Amino acid sequence: MKLIKTPTKGMNDYLPSEVALREYVKGVIVKEYSAAGFRLIETPAVEHIENLTGKNGGDNEKLIFRIMKRGEELERAAESGGELCDSGLRYDLTVPLSRYYSNNSAKLPSPFMAMQIGNVWRADRPQKGRFRQFTQCDIDILGDASKTAEISLISATGGVLKKLGFNNFTVRINDRRLLKLTAEKCGFAPEDHDRVFIILDKMDKIGLDGVKNELLEAGFDSESVEKYITVYTDCGNTTCSDFAASVGGEAESVAAGLSAIMKAASAATVGGCSLKFDPTLVRGMSYYTGTIFEIEMDGYGYSVGGGGRYDEMLGKFSGQNVPACGFSLGFERIVGALADSGFTVPMSGKSYAFLAEKNIDDETLLSMYSDAAALRAEGCTVTVTSKMKNFGFQKSKLEDEGVSEFRVYGENGVKIL
Amino acid sequence: MKLIKTPTKGMNDYLPSEVALREYVKGVIVKEYSAAGFRLIETPAVEHIENLTGKNGGDNEKLIFRIMKRGEELERAAESGGELCDSGLRYDLTVPLSRYYSNNSAKLPSPFMAMQIGNVWRADRPQKGRFRQFTQCDIDILGDASKTAEISLISATGGVLKKLGFNNFTVRINDRRLLKLTAEKCGFAPEDHDRVFIILDKMDKIGLDGVKNELLEAGFDSESVEKYITVYTDCGNTTCSDFAASVGGEAESVAAGLSAIMKAASAATVGGCSLKFDPTLVRGMSYYTGTIFEIEMDGYGYSVGGGGRYDEMLGKFSGQNVPACGFSLGFERIVGALADSGFTVPMSGKSYAFLAEKNIDDETLLSMYSDAAALRAEGCTVTVTSKMKNFGFQKSKLEDEGVSEFRVYGENGVKIL
Repeated sequence: MKLIKTPTKGMNDYLPSEVALREYVKGVIVKEYSAAGFRLIETPAVEHIENLTGKNGGDNEKLIFRIMKRGEELERAAESGGELCDSGLRYDLTVPLSRYYSNNSAKLPSPFMAMQIGNVWRADRPQKGRFRQFTQCDIDILGDASKTAEISLISATGGVLKKLGFNNFTVRINDRRLLKLTAEKCGFAPEDHDRVFIILDKMDKIGLDGVKNELLEAGFDSESVEKYITVYTDCGNTTCSDFAASVGGEAESVAAGLSAIMKAASAATVGGCSLKFDPTLVRGMSYYTGTIFEIEMDGYGYSVGGGGRYDEMLGKFSGQNVPACGFSLGFERIVGALADSGFTVPMSGKSYAFLAEKNIDDETLLSMYSDAAALRAEGCTVTVTSKMKNFGFQKSKLEDEGVSEFRVYGENGVKIL
Repeated sequence: MKLIKTPTKGMNDYLPSEVALREYVKGVIVKEYSAAGFRLIETPAVEHIENLTGKNGGDNEKLIFRIMKRGEELERAAESGGELCDSGLRYDLTVPLSRYYSNNSAKLPSPFMAMQIGNVWRADRPQKGRFRQFTQCDIDILGDASKTAEISLISATGGVLKKLGFNNFTVRINDRRLLKLTAEKCGFAPEDHDRVFIILDKMDKIGLDGVKNELLEAGFDSESVEKYITVYTDCGNTTCSDFAASVGGEAESVAAGLSAIMKAASAATVGGCSLKFDPTLVRGMSYYTGTIFEIEMDGYGYSVGGGGRYDEMLGKFSGQNVPACGFSLGFERIVGALADSGFTVPMSGKSYAFLAEKNIDDETLLSMYSDAAALRAEGCTVTVTSKMKNFGFQKSKLEDEGVSEFRVYGENGVKIL
């Protein structure tokens, strides 16, 4: 029986040139974040199913690749009609990080500045630019309740994007507490807030009237909806202190904190960073408790990263809340944007191909390898392989891979082509 | 409900210092193999269950983490009592590579020199140094039937080990065809060869007498066993031409090829490489068709890598055989050996921690970040974070992470500690 040649649905084989770009981007990210004090950690791809289904993953929990029990446990479960699955592939890096910190905090600095680059899996409907296995890149600061956390996360991420050659981005910023205080002031009950926010989040797609209609259709009190719409009318260019003044009360101290974060994060980013208050920014995950942010790139209709403060998540593992704030960079989107722009990965040295003829004698074979070693010692890449019958095709493929000089070794010694 | 803090059974959380060592080793491997012309590729962690159970994985096929179907497909399968699983986590990098090459060969150079570093999963019984998720590191040359493939694989791998500081290793080498010709000459039927080799493979554990007894116990013809044992008597230091002479026939041309590979691979490795013919070397996987090799490290009772030629595997995907030869480096064992030796990862620059007091004013906050940016531009690492109440503990943990200078920023400006 012939085996199946294509990858599993929605997953990718990456060609060498694609891997080179991905590795280049990873290299820049790790170097910049490391210089800013973030430490790379690693967690397993496989998580306990209980942790993945603990309501911290939102809609992602519907997309889990579930792993079956094995051996006797599977047999027992099958016989008794019990649960056949004991684990699953992680769908994000935040749940594993929370587990990791609860498990290892005694061995880690506090505050702990974590960096993760790893694959996650979601059984989503595959579509352009959306895969079932993809790389996420997160930084998180655990154990720091102060605004230093937000400033360090935003400025480090701005720095990474600048190093990768992006200048056309803006960090939109808001605070979950401002969203809640606004909804509260307009008369929405706390248990309705999440439903209200999901509708508000559509502002950029359906506009203010669309938000109003959806809120009314959802059956919310028309007076509350009217007030709510008034607050968000013409809010596109409002400052956070003006917005907070219209809400009043606690909102003003939240806004003062946000303003300070925006000012410092912009100044702390090498080359500067554009930050913009956006009172309609919601962010999907319900675990956020404070500041939230999202990176918008000119010319792209999607965010290339985002994050926020989630002070109550770690308590679900340890029983004790730990302040936490994170930023997830959209690795696949950044790689896609660079590929679209025609970016080529800088080569580290000249690349040669040494090709052995079939008739090569032992002495020439040895000199081929010693010539290769000498050039490699100078920092060059030397591919040593057999010369194929279809040399024209072989040469053009190697040129695609960056080879610029060819030498053929055979019984008459070496020829430079 | 509290979530589960520990990783899933047999899998690891890696601390920052552990990740630093792993990343250092990966960096050396990728740099050396790249200079030798190997191109990094990437395949998904998830493979079709048909490919994983196609008899190319030997005993590893018993250790598959199986992934369940989803949605309607799962419901249909459950109702009809059908197969609940459609895919699984890869247990090695050879099956995915074979699928990858069959799927992408038109876009790749020929011969193609592939490099892979990735995680694989096996539901093995966890024990010291053996994990259920671990990193494999493979190089393979596809489409080259000549001995250049073996020489390039062995010399490049020898070069990686030398760069990592290992000098105490030997590459043991043999050829599956020699094993077969020897067994044939002694009268074992071809269909019995694999069972005979599994017993021969135990030579280093049970000795020649042990091999003899097991062969007899397995019911093989005593005359064949006697002949077989005679061939392998005192074979510990035999040359491959002497061994082949005792077998005769085709064995002599196979041995001539092996000798040439050994001579050239040793000369082609920068700093030299010790190679040793070992007629009892078998290698577990039955897909090998020619040269096989294994790296032995003095002071360690296990191999730190191995591989060989498998010319008939790729045909199972494409219907067309492609000559193939690969070398798998024991990444986890190399990392373990370096950790045991007390190796420390070289730091790239001085590491600072800038700590913000609670009472820091906005101006000092900004100067803290601009001071940090200036030092980072010089190649230093600067961790910017909040100063904690338990400063002594915080300082000692940061020192563990390599921080050598501390500055505290507060309302009275900066203090260097």
